[in-house]
Amino acid sequence: MNTHGSATQPDGHAVGERATGITVPQGFSAAATTAGIKPSGKPDMSLLVNNGPTFHAAAMFTRNRVVASPVKLTRKHNDGTFKAAVINAGNANACNGVQGDTDAQATADKVAEMLEINSTDVAVCSTGLIGDVLPMEKLLSGIETLVPQLSEEITAGNAAANAIMTTDIVQKEAVYRGQGWSIGAMGKGVGMMSPSLATMLVFLTTDALIENPAQLHDSLSAATATTFDCLDVDGSTSTNDTVLLMASGASGVTPDEQEFTDAIHQVCLDLAMQLQADAEGVTKRVSITVTGAATDAEAKDAARVVGRDNLFKCAMFGSDPNWGRVLAAVGMAPVDMDPEKINVSFNGKPVCVNSTGAPGARNVDLSGADIAVEINLGVGDGRATVWTTDLSYSYVEINSEYST
Amino acid sequence: MNTHGSATQPDGHAVGERATGITVPQGFSAAATTAGIKPSGKPDMSLLVNNGPTFHAAAMFTRNRVVASPVKLTRKHNDGTFKAAVINAGNANACNGVQGDTDAQATADKVAEMLEINSTDVAVCSTGLIGDVLPMEKLLSGIETLVPQLSEEITAGNAAANAIMTTDIVQKEAVYRGQGWSIGAMGKGVGMMSPSLATMLVFLTTDALIENPAQLHDSLSAATATTFDCLDVDGSTSTNDTVLLMASGASGVTPDEQEFTDAIHQVCLDLAMQLQADAEGVTKRVSITVTGAATDAEAKDAARVVGRDNLFKCAMFGSDPNWGRVLAAVGMAPVDMDPEKINVSFNGKPVCVNSTGAPGARNVDLSGADIAVEINLGVGDGRATVWTTDLSYSYVEINSEYST
Repeated sequence: MNTHGSATQPDGHAVGERATGITVPQGFSAAATTAGIKPSGKPDMSLLVNNGPTFHAAAMFTRNRVVASPVKLTRKHNDGTFKAAVINAGNANACNGVQGDTDAQATADKVAEMLEINSTDVAVCSTGLIGDVLPMEKLLSGIETLVPQLSEEITAGNAAANAIMTTDIVQKEAVYRGQGWSIGAMGKGVGMMSPSLATMLVFLTTDALIENPAQLHDSLSAATATTFDCLDVDGSTSTNDTVLLMASGASGVTPDEQEFTDAIHQVCLDLAMQLQADAEGVTKRVSITVTGAATDAEAKDAARVVGRDNLFKCAMFGSDPNWGRVLAAVGMAPVDMDPEKINVSFNGKPVCVNSTGAPGARNVDLSGADIAVEINLGVGDGRATVWTTDLSYSYVEINSEYST
Repeated sequence: MNTHGSATQPDGHAVGERATGITVPQGFSAAATTAGIKPSGKPDMSLLVNNGPTFHAAAMFTRNRVVASPVKLTRKHNDGTFKAAVINAGNANACNGVQGDTDAQATADKVAEMLEINSTDVAVCSTGLIGDVLPMEKLLSGIETLVPQLSEEITAGNAAANAIMTTDIVQKEAVYRGQGWSIGAMGKGVGMMSPSLATMLVFLTTDALIENPAQLHDSLSAATATTFDCLDVDGSTSTNDTVLLMASGASGVTPDEQEFTDAIHQVCLDLAMQLQADAEGVTKRVSITVTGAATDAEAKDAARVVGRDNLFKCAMFGSDPNWGRVLAAVGMAPVDMDPEKINVSFNGKPVCVNSTGAPGARNVDLSGADIAVEINLGVGDGRATVWTTDLSYSYVEINSEYST
C-alpha cells in the first residue's frame, strides 16, 4: 500500500531526474540529525534554511483551539517572512504550559543566533507525544550539530524529510519543475485542518521570484482547501499541524501566476495522496465524491461526514459494499439533500438509485486497495471530494499503544 | 462485560421480585415468534399491545434525514395514541423506496385487522440490514402467529425483548415500581439521536393513569435528552431509531408528576447503561463528564466530541492514560473554553492541570472496565455527561463483516 514519494510530472515539462524534495529549488539548504528525542534512536531533527535573495513565506496552522507552543510562536512570527524552519519529531511540545512556550522560544533563539538572523524569522515545528517537556539540552545540542551540516544537496533535503517522520512508514516528498524554476516539498503525518492522527507538517520551497508576496498566501490557502483540508483519516485534528511555504527567488524567474497557483496545488495534492497512502493502519484508499449538493461547501461537509463514519470505514476495511451505511451516514450531514433521491456508486457501479438498492449492489467487488464512492444528493450542482481510509485492526493496534 | 438486564430499585420502594420488562405494568400483553427473517433462525418478531383503559403514548424518532419506512409511518401515526407496536429484527426496511412504504403500511394494516383497531394506532419498528426488501409473506404470517399468543405474563414481555435483538449479546429490560403502579421497558441496539451502530429501539410501558397526556411526551423527551441522547458509541445514527412510551392507565393510580418524570428518567438511564455495556466490541465503559462549560448544552457538545474521537477511544482500549488526546479532541469542540486552563482527571486522579501534565499522569491505572474522564473547560458552570465505549479490534471485526 505504501508507495515512496513520487515526483510530480506536470504535462509539457520534462522531468530531468527523479530528484525530489525541499532542496530541489535553488536557494535552500537543509540538514538532519539524531538529537536523541525519539526513543528509537532514529533521526529526529531537521533544519531548513532559505538563503534568499527573497524571504517571502506563507503559513497555515491547525484549527484546534488547543495549540502547541511551537505553533503559538510560529503563528506570532508569521508576518510574511521566514528564513528558517527547525523541526523536531518525537515530542509535540504541546500542553507543557509556560515551560513549553519558553522552550519553543529558546529553540528559535538558538537557531537565530547560529544563523545570525532574527528569532522572528524562525519557524518552529514539533511533532510527537503531547504533554512531555522537551529535552532542551538534546535539542539545543542538535541545533549546534545541524547548522554546520546545512547543504543545498538534494540528499540533504531527503535526509530532512526522513528525520521529521513519526509513525510514518515512508518519507513523503514532492517536486514541480517549471521553466527555470521549481517547487519542492516534504511532509509527514496524516491530514490537517480536520484530521490527523499524528501531526501533519508540510514544508514547501520554491525558487520562483514572487513579485507579490500575497500571492504565496493566496496560492497556499487555495491549495490546502482542496487537498490537505479534504484529507480526513479519522476526524481528529492535531495541536501541531503546520504548512509552510518559503520562496527564495533564487531562480530569478517569475512564473505566470496561474501556473504557480496550479503548481502549488499539484504539489500539495501529490503530498496529500502520499499522506493518505501511508495513514496509520490503512488498507484501503477511499475517495468520497459528493455531487448534486446545494454548494461546493455543502458537498465537502457531506463527504466529510461519510468519511468520518466508523461503520462506513469498517465496511470499507471488509470490502463490504454495504451502501446502506453510506445512506445512514450522509443522512446525518447538516446539508440540503433530497432523502428520496440519493444516488450512490462504488467504483463507478450504481449501488443505490433514488435512495433504493440497485440490482447487483451487494455483489460489487471492493477487494482492491482503491475505492471510489460517489454520492449524488439530488438538489444542486455543488461538488467536492474528500479522501479517507478504512478503519482496520492495525489502526486500533497502533493507536492503542502510543504513549505507554 | 455484559450484564443481564437489571431491575431498577428506587429508594424507598420495595422490589417484590426480579421480574422485569414490558409486561410488568398492568394492561399490556406481548408475544414473540420466529418468522424466519433472521438468517440465524432466532426469534425475530415481537408484538406489544396496550389493553387500556387508556391509550396515551409518546414517541421519539431518529434525527437522521434518511429514515426507514417504518419510522415514516410511525411518525405519521404519532398523534398521542398508540394501541400496539409490531417489531421485526433482521431487516431494517430502510432505503427500499415505495415498496418499503407499502410493506410498512401492510404490516400495520395486518396488525390492525387482527386486533380490530385502527391502523393509525399501530407503531411499526424494524431493525437490521438496510436495503433489502422485507420478506412480507413471512412477516404477515408472523403476525398471524403473534396475535393468538399475546399474553400478560412477565415471560411474554421477556420473550419480546429477546426477539428484537440483532447484534445485541444480552437482552435489555428494566422496571420501576411505584406505589401501586409501575414502568416496564425493553430495548435493543446502541445509542439513539447521535449514535448507533445498529438501530436503537426502546419500548416503555406504564400502567400509571396519566391525566395530562402531554406529560408523557415531556417526561420522555426530558429523559432521552440526558440518557439515550448522551450515549455515543460511534457517532453514527441509525435510520430506524425509535423510543415509544405507552400508558395503559390499568393501575388506576395517578403518580405524582415529579415522581413519574424521575421514574421515566431512571428507567431510561438503566436501559442506556445496559446498551453501553453491550455495545459492539466494547471492552471499556467510558463516561465523559465536562464541567466548567459556558452552558450545559456546550458541556454536552464538548463531551460528545471527545467521546467520538477515535484516537481517544483507541487509547481507552489500550488502557493508556494518554491525556494529550483528550486535550487535542476537546480543542476541536465548537464551544467556549480557556485553552490554557483545561483540567482533566482519569478515575478521579488529575492528569492535566491548567492544560499541562500533572505529576504521575502517565502512571494512572486504567486497566479496569470502567473509566471516568472529567474535563473542566474553565469558563462557566455548564455540566454534562456522555457515555461512550472504547474502539477495539472486536468493533472493527463485527462491523467489517456485517452485510456480506
